[in-house]
Amino acid sequence: MKKVSAAEQFASIEGFWNPRQVGELNGQLVKFVRLKGQFEWHKHTDEDEMFFVLEGRLTIRLRDEDIILGPGEFFIIPRGVEHMPVCEDECRVMLFEPAATKQYGD
Amino acid sequence: MKKVSAAEQFASIEGFWNPRQVGELNGQLVKFVRLKGQFEWHKHTDEDEMFFVLEGRLTIRLRDEDIILGPGEFFIIPRGVEHMPVCEDECRVMLFEPAATKQYGD
Repeated sequence: MKKVSAAEQFASIEGFWNPRQVGELNGQLVKFVRLKGQFEWHKHTDEDEMFFVLEGRLTIRLRDEDIILGPGEFFIIPRGVEHMPVCEDECRVMLFEPAATKQYGD
Repeated sequence: MKKVSAAEQFASIEGFWNPRQVGELNGQLVKFVRLKGQFEWHKHTDEDEMFFVLEGRLTIRLRDEDIILGPGEFFIIPRGVEHMPVCEDECRVMLFEPAATKQYGD
């Protein structure tokens, strides 16, 4: 059985918005992803999704507020809530979501 | 809706081996815990458990090997596997586990 190192994984993750699955537990996936720029507005009807920031700054835009995250901060987007991740500079994030989650939403 | 900051939470977590629930998603709990010293050998029959180290060094003893984790590293203990967390100096950890998980195992 092996541990997973964020530094080692990120050293070989190419490109942005390209999540790599790095773990699975209880039907949930753990992913590392590099973000830069902005994604599109979307939602996940049946899945809550957690963004934990490891490096950089990430804004999670919601329809009525912006959540601004730095290293060591997380936010759980409840199922059904529209969101758009945005970051000017590169941001490194750990995601938790059910195996069924589609990146672009439903 | 609110973000969660590890630094803010840990500033008010008293004592060791005393996990605080800081989030819930898809029936899974996110917890922060301060560890120091050693816990007892135990296992969770039906739940996988993830230890993500935020600060310090943590050894997760298994019956046949030791997993040594530093900041930014995680390990998923598969259900049914006996383990004992150990750390000489304080270590700060984020845990992921199903809501049903009992701290001392089954």
